[in-house]
Amino acid sequence: MRNLKVMMSYRGTNYHGFQRQDNAVTVQEVVEKHVSSVLNEKVTINGCSRTDTGVHANSYCFSVRTNSLIPTKNFVRGVNGRLPDDISILSCEEATDDFHARFSCKAKEYVYLMHCSESKNPFATDLALHYRRPVNEELIRKAAQEFVGTHDFRAFCSDSTGKHSTVRTIYNFDVESNGVLLKMLVKGDGFLYNMIRIMVGTLIMVNEGRIDVTDIKRIMDSKDRQQAGKTAQAHGLYLNRIFY
Amino acid sequence: MRNLKVMMSYRGTNYHGFQRQDNAVTVQEVVEKHVSSVLNEKVTINGCSRTDTGVHANSYCFSVRTNSLIPTKNFVRGVNGRLPDDISILSCEEATDDFHARFSCKAKEYVYLMHCSESKNPFATDLALHYRRPVNEELIRKAAQEFVGTHDFRAFCSDSTGKHSTVRTIYNFDVESNGVLLKMLVKGDGFLYNMIRIMVGTLIMVNEGRIDVTDIKRIMDSKDRQQAGKTAQAHGLYLNRIFY
Repeated sequence: MRNLKVMMSYRGTNYHGFQRQDNAVTVQEVVEKHVSSVLNEKVTINGCSRTDTGVHANSYCFSVRTNSLIPTKNFVRGVNGRLPDDISILSCEEATDDFHARFSCKAKEYVYLMHCSESKNPFATDLALHYRRPVNEELIRKAAQEFVGTHDFRAFCSDSTGKHSTVRTIYNFDVESNGVLLKMLVKGDGFLYNMIRIMVGTLIMVNEGRIDVTDIKRIMDSKDRQQAGKTAQAHGLYLNRIFY
Repeated sequence: MRNLKVMMSYRGTNYHGFQRQDNAVTVQEVVEKHVSSVLNEKVTINGCSRTDTGVHANSYCFSVRTNSLIPTKNFVRGVNGRLPDDISILSCEEATDDFHARFSCKAKEYVYLMHCSESKNPFATDLALHYRRPVNEELIRKAAQEFVGTHDFRAFCSDSTGKHSTVRTIYNFDVESNGVLLKMLVKGDGFLYNMIRIMVGTLIMVNEGRIDVTDIKRIMDSKDRQQAGKTAQAHGLYLNRIFY
């Protein structure tokens, strides 16, 4: 049986996240339907990650096992020809039998986009958080470094019940800005539920002087979700890269 | 009576162009309604240009006369608070009495965006033309220079009936690419109906070897619309800047 590694990109606005649900349209459901049609057999796709409602993916990986002999190039064309405009297959390659999009994953990189301006950007309504207040880029960058390293991120997790461990490693947390678009790039070995959005919400409170840079370590040590900032909105978040 | 100069940006996808029409939603109709509400009097806004259905504006100017004493800053906030997500007021300033967004205009700059890749970009479906064939950027750039200067653009106009003159001056026609996004930047003293989209359509045919660079002068001299390329789709086009 072949095992295919497929990369895709999607705009999350119209989906209730990646993972199949009974009463809501998800990316998995839509992609599985068209992949099954092209492979001419009913398949289940294994996604690299759950994503929340409204979260986007620049580069998302899924694996799928199939008996079909279809060449990978034809697979890409066939699925893209059927998919709606907000999902796009980028590539497809043969993977070894033990490859699994989720379990083989070594690290993930997310990007969070903020449109920082008094006026909204009509081209980015669902694609970046609109933030009207002045931005202290240096301060945000400094605060973001407090998250880098191996820490217990329980305070930065929406639901930690049942988790074996809330310890994760963040490799880097970069902050870039061109004066209007602020880009936060976070790479780590894995992320807890809502962890990036809560870290971003905390950085926004640092920017507004409501949390001090030195408070971040204290919040981390408290392991108390109530101490951290609000969960930043989903539509600024993108799964950006996945490492195997 | 005050005369206000207002800059705005809009995503044209959901509008039948700028100019008011009886049976279709236009940018003018929507903006006028909210501007009138904020000024507390029924006004007509004078736009700098018509734009076609689906065409966007990074920077569009309209002027409006009013008896209202509202400070310009409050005007911007008030209108933005009422406008839908796909239209945004960027600024408002007092203009001299003789200023008119359309008649005072000295030059306009448009940009045409092409997403050049086998796979579509799910974030740019309505925001750039999806072009799947290989792109010869140098060839397109060379061909685009044939349009620069003062010429009779009758062959590059969808409807020249009733036009006093089809002579226009193009100041520059720049072509930039990062390998995936191809950007054509055209500045001129004015443009005929569909003129930029027909020039872009012609450059696409040059790229595909169906029209030769040297043919462009011949097509121009023919003054025959049938000789030029197809009208490129509207959703790649943006009014980018307006010069007074």
